Amino acid sequence: MVIIDTCTISRGLTPPMDSRMSSTLTGMAIPGKSRVAVIGATGYGGLQTLRLLQNHPGLSVSFLGGDRSAGQEWNSICPFLSLADNPVVEAVEVDRIGEAADFAVLSLPNGLACQLTPKLLERGVRVVDLSADFRYRSLEQWSQVYVQEAQSLNRNDAALCSSAVYGLPEWRGPDIAEATIVAAPGCFPTASLLPLLPFLKQGLIETDGIIIDAKTGTSGGGRVPKQGMLLAEASESIAPYGVVGHRHTSEIEQMAQEVAGQSVQLQFTPHLVPMVRGLLSTVYARLRDPGLTAEDCTTVLQAIYRHHPCVEVLPVGSYPATKWVRHTNKAMLSVQVDTRTGQLVLMSAIDNLIKGQAGQGVQCLNLMAGFAPETGLPLQAFYP
Amino acid sequence: MVIIDTCTISRGLTPPMDSRMSSTLTGMAIPGKSRVAVIGATGYGGLQTLRLLQNHPGLSVSFLGGDRSAGQEWNSICPFLSLADNPVVEAVEVDRIGEAADFAVLSLPNGLACQLTPKLLERGVRVVDLSADFRYRSLEQWSQVYVQEAQSLNRNDAALCSSAVYGLPEWRGPDIAEATIVAAPGCFPTASLLPLLPFLKQGLIETDGIIIDAKTGTSGGGRVPKQGMLLAEASESIAPYGVVGHRHTSEIEQMAQEVAGQSVQLQFTPHLVPMVRGLLSTVYARLRDPGLTAEDCTTVLQAIYRHHPCVEVLPVGSYPATKWVRHTNKAMLSVQVDTRTGQLVLMSAIDNLIKGQAGQGVQCLNLMAGFAPETGLPLQAFYP
Amino acid sequence: MVIIDTCTISRGLTPPMDSRMSSTLTGMAIPGKSRVAVIGATGYGGLQTLRLLQNHPGLSVSFLGGDRSAGQEWNSICPFLSLADNPVVEAVEVDRIGEAADFAVLSLPNGLACQLTPKLLERGVRVVDLSADFRYRSLEQWSQVYVQEAQSLNRNDAALCSSAVYGLPEWRGPDIAEATIVAAPGCFPTASLLPLLPFLKQGLIETDGIIIDAKTGTSGGGRVPKQGMLLAEASESIAPYGVVGHRHTSEIEQMAQEVAGQSVQLQFTPHLVPMVRGLLSTVYARLRDPGLTAEDCTTVLQAIYRHHPCVEVLPVGSYPATKWVRHTNKAMLSVQVDTRTGQLVLMSAIDNLIKGQAGQGVQCLNLMAGFAPETGLPLQAFYP
Amino acid sequence: MVIIDTCTISRGLTPPMDSRMSSTLTGMAIPGKSRVAVIGATGYGGLQTLRLLQNHPGLSVSFLGGDRSAGQEWNSICPFLSLADNPVVEAVEVDRIGEAADFAVLSLPNGLACQLTPKLLERGVRVVDLSADFRYRSLEQWSQVYVQEAQSLNRNDAALCSSAVYGLPEWRGPDIAEATIVAAPGCFPTASLLPLLPFLKQGLIETDGIIIDAKTGTSGGGRVPKQGMLLAEASESIAPYGVVGHRHTSEIEQMAQEVAGQSVQLQFTPHLVPMVRGLLSTVYARLRDPGLTAEDCTTVLQAIYRHHPCVEVLPVGSYPATKWVRHTNKAMLSVQVDTRTGQLVLMSAIDNLIKGQAGQGVQCLNLMAGFAPETGLPLQAFYP
Repeated sequence: MVIIDTCTISRGLTPPMDSRMSSTLTGMAIPGKSRVAVIGATGYGGLQTLRLLQNHPGLSVSFLGGDRSAGQEWNSICPFLSLADNPVVEAVEVDRIGEAADFAVLSLPNGLACQLTPKLLERGVRVVDLSADFRYRSLEQWSQVYVQEAQSLNRNDAALCSSAVYGLPEWRGPDIAEATIVAAPGCFPTASLLPLLPFLKQGLIETDGIIIDAKTGTSGGGRVPKQGMLLAEASESIAPYGVVGHRHTSEIEQMAQEVAGQSVQLQFTPHLVPMVRGLLSTVYARLRDPGLTAEDCTTVLQAIYRHHPCVEVLPVGSYPATKWVRHTNKAMLSVQVDTRTGQLVLMSAIDNLIKGQAGQGVQCLNLMAGFAPETGLPLQAFYP
Repeated sequence: MVIIDTCTISRGLTPPMDSRMSSTLTGMAIPGKSRVAVIGATGYGGLQTLRLLQNHPGLSVSFLGGDRSAGQEWNSICPFLSLADNPVVEAVEVDRIGEAADFAVLSLPNGLACQLTPKLLERGVRVVDLSADFRYRSLEQWSQVYVQEAQSLNRNDAALCSSAVYGLPEWRGPDIAEATIVAAPGCFPTASLLPLLPFLKQGLIETDGIIIDAKTGTSGGGRVPKQGMLLAEASESIAPYGVVGHRHTSEIEQMAQEVAGQSVQLQFTPHLVPMVRGLLSTVYARLRDPGLTAEDCTTVLQAIYRHHPCVEVLPVGSYPATKWVRHTNKAMLSVQVDTRTGQLVLMSAIDNLIKGQAGQGVQCLNLMAGFAPETGLPLQAFYP
Repeated sequence: MVIIDTCTISRGLTPPMDSRMSSTLTGMAIPGKSRVAVIGATGYGGLQTLRLLQNHPGLSVSFLGGDRSAGQEWNSICPFLSLADNPVVEAVEVDRIGEAADFAVLSLPNGLACQLTPKLLERGVRVVDLSADFRYRSLEQWSQVYVQEAQSLNRNDAALCSSAVYGLPEWRGPDIAEATIVAAPGCFPTASLLPLLPFLKQGLIETDGIIIDAKTGTSGGGRVPKQGMLLAEASESIAPYGVVGHRHTSEIEQMAQEVAGQSVQLQFTPHLVPMVRGLLSTVYARLRDPGLTAEDCTTVLQAIYRHHPCVEVLPVGSYPATKWVRHTNKAMLSVQVDTRTGQLVLMSAIDNLIKGQAGQGVQCLNLMAGFAPETGLPLQAFYP
Repeated sequence: MVIIDTCTISRGLTPPMDSRMSSTLTGMAIPGKSRVAVIGATGYGGLQTLRLLQNHPGLSVSFLGGDRSAGQEWNSICPFLSLADNPVVEAVEVDRIGEAADFAVLSLPNGLACQLTPKLLERGVRVVDLSADFRYRSLEQWSQVYVQEAQSLNRNDAALCSSAVYGLPEWRGPDIAEATIVAAPGCFPTASLLPLLPFLKQGLIETDGIIIDAKTGTSGGGRVPKQGMLLAEASESIAPYGVVGHRHTSEIEQMAQEVAGQSVQLQFTPHLVPMVRGLLSTVYARLRDPGLTAEDCTTVLQAIYRHHPCVEVLPVGSYPATKWVRHTNKAMLSVQVDTRTGQLVLMSAIDNLIKGQAGQGVQCLNLMAGFAPETGLPLQAFYP
């Protein structure tokens, strides 16, 4: 700690000898701001986190960690987001992170966060994990869903799993504020749960036969090149994938059941849409009371989300387009009711990389650091 | 007729004096080919029909009719599909059509075909209508669904409606072959019915609670400029529209009920996808026999469509992308079963302008003219 | 003025009786903020201006004017940019604007601003015009370029034209600060002039034979529906348009000549690119001194733009993508030199609706209102 | 050979025991058709070749060779182009190819064709190579341009290089018909040379200062996943790349010089466009005779290409969009002249994977096998 403090002071007092000289961010404390380490900085989750924190009044990035990009100057590998001091991406060393940061956002492939997190917690760093490693309260359930990872990892951190908080701020705000580890929800669960939970909580819909037909842009597949995500392949096409048994099914059901207080069984089908960002979830459920109107159901949503600025409920007859929330941390919800069939149709649009990933992570950080949840987060889109 | 015959002969024997001279197509009979009038030639339906018939061994376009484009040389208004003899688009006059054509493909806004068709039939021209005017056997039902059109038109052609054949060739082939008027199905009904009908016919699924979540490219909105269909608006976005009560709902139910032999009630939700062409329908239904597997259900589809070259059933686990059928007259189907929930998930991809519109129209023409249904129709995509 | 002040006070002190009640914005003075009228609010230029000013520390929108949308509640017509007080769009009445605003941003088709501006100036409203009406110092030249508009308008405001300032802040900053009327440059001229002017100013390139090959997203065509701008037409295609004699040619030459101090003759060819936003200009010019390297030329640009935060000069070998500046007011420039041919290749990427239109308008407003030019303007993109 | 012949006979006579059984294509001679081996079948070049030959009246695919996909059933890896007999992709063994094919189309990364070709020629197989290995008549020049490949390969096949024919059928038809090895041109050279060569041949333009600003869809980058070609990265963006010194510069200059009969020096800049297919080349050159009009120059092109059905010259004022030639083997050309600047502006649109690659390869095959050049090739687009 002493070394770092010295370093911080010296950096604060001494002007750089060469203004184009790059440096690590470590120890770059901005007075009054909490320090955040971004691990996996050049992936989409890391990039969004970094970008969002550039404008944040109370949080600043103090460590950029990466694996393949370690040792490289930031501006040379990410010229689309040049940083004034052009830091060097650092290897992911927990001691360094412990010295440099109060919080860490882990944006890594599944199976890495569970190895890194205990060491960070030991060093006093509170963690927001964007992967699936801590999204299940039960390690056993995680092992059943993430079979391959479970076999290669042989985890025994059941206690840690049960202590992690599911980072859906509109529903777990107080717990998130106190948490040492927050598991940011998946993009599909975020979009699907926000419109669904109010109706489950109030017992207005049947808990079986729920259909979630979801559509995502290709950035949801991450930045590591895959043939199916090439523009030449994915453009001018829509297709389902992971039909029956997609991992997000159980994640959605877990949270739905906690809120419903009973078993919930649903069908979840994701589709790949030829666009960069955006996620739309269309949810079908059977109303228990056939007399409910679209206006009634809109009121149900509005009542629950009235004081949640990251959720907007549209008036009846206005249906959300993902473009309306692009580059924002907002979920736009709409409800329609078919009195002929008794079906409730819920629509929910988010930016899969913001409210569906990194923005929600920052929203959790805000709560953990004592800020209002929407602090520093964009809530209005640039249209078109 | 004599005049026309003479004209035909003279055109066949005499080379044009000026090769750049434009002309009408009227009477351009190609020996051994049936003559087709394309009405509404510069809209997307007309353009596809015209393009498909360029390669057809037994049908040739003998009349190009349009409203706004009447009097203009084809190649000057459609340089992307230049025709060797650069015909002039003609006004839609039924006498001229009667002389020039054996068949007419009507690609017009709703409410026009029902005015034009009786006059064409009188002149011996058999009609394939791409609009919704004749899709209902009952004029009364049409009037309930197309309320605005019904009010302004005040139709009294109930007999004609009931005589029209619903142009889904895989299910109404013999009737189409004999028909004088064929109503080509809508794009959503085509994609949704093809996978659904076999299960309804065999009584394998519940006839209520069926969910159809459909996704279409923007060309489905036609060629007349609309703000919401601008690239700047529709690109990088997906959104639902027409939620609850979309007109295609009743069209799908009508045909579903005919095949099921009982009432069928379904929920249909279309979505606009940021791509030019392609339509994917994801259909959810509850299996009556929970023991059926995906393999069983695939066999059901294969058995029905084995001898239908415009339908391809994919093996279990392979899900159709709309790109796989782009620019073809093929529907690609796939089935999955969730044994946990008892849900059947049907997936169906078509090109909305070909199998979903003009290609299916040509498929009907083929049957009407005595050809194999797939004659002259592309069945393999160019990938990517 | 008294009326307005009272109104302002009463609105400031009295809470609205119904929080969902909509209202006009007129007179909504935010203490310490200059008041801006946005005219043509629902077009792309207006929408961007409105969006950018939502976050502005020193400017606030006090009047929303529109023609077709007059009388409608904002949130019902633009749900993608809902405003807290849901104002009503007002008819464009100059007295009202004079009362409500210190500045007006005119985002209208060519030929309207020249009619509106004199009346606004009379009422003490300083104008930023996003159209071409005041981009030429000489009314005569304008009349030669905008022939049709000139014939129907019969303008005689030559003095006003010559007093208008060309709103390229990096080159006309002090004049803009003092101006009563600023003509914001076209999108193509902005992107093309920024890299070109330094070399013309320093006499490093030949002033004839300059080639500007430019590429724009379709939002440059505006929000009024046009067939060629439909997603179905413009997607999956690139095409040139306005080849030889595009109006922006003379606009670029005018400014180029002012800076070069001599005649400049160039070839400008725009292309339509299948994307919403973004404009790339690739400029070719012959170096006078064949010994200059890419590094030398990069230094030329860096020296000129060092203190201009809305321009970023990339290091040699890094070429700008329009995505890197999307939704920002930044121009990214890069230079390459071909020592074999003696050609200088300049590349310049902007967001056509921000730095190419509304953002530059706000940049001008900033100078006019005494703020730093980049105040309230986004300078970092969200990637991807 | 005996084994193969037997196999051929038996396959011809004996129906397969299991209709779903897959098989190799080897020896599948279709009477009257020349046999073509497609090497690199699952890349974009191979896929296009395979698709184009499905409809060919005189050529049939008799061998599918691949590296990574060897041993796999075709329909399982390419369900978007299912083949009736579901062949197995074979390893690239020259003896097998020699037995199975009269011609081979090599669609491989640079540096492989030059190793494979001599062995194929020995076995009597005539080769169309889609890579750059044989595009230069001089091995020395190839070594200067493809430096890395040259260093690792240490080629000594200068005689083979000089015997290879540059496969631009409109300009090298008779040579191609006789060739044993044809080097299909690159996509950029094809699009750029077709409009440029007539003017060079007739001495109408200056041979220095030529600017080629070219734009390509992302499929030009191939099917191997690369980060920059992901939809998430490449969509909604345009950017230059390979500025100054791109390898296609020298390829274009080589052919331009052969036709001009003198040295030609040009500037070539490619750009990546957010679309799957399509390539537009905008070429700027200075007219030697300033009195030439756009009509004159259009006549120049028309005179040269009158009898070449794969090239279409548009009338003055009509500019080609890449969509107009998508999925076709046609190049669409247009000319404009700026009498003010003396510049000639040439525009040329192709489908980069068809006329820019595989279609041109088939066009060469046609000539080699004695067919008309356009045999079996699509020449009309599906619009939109």
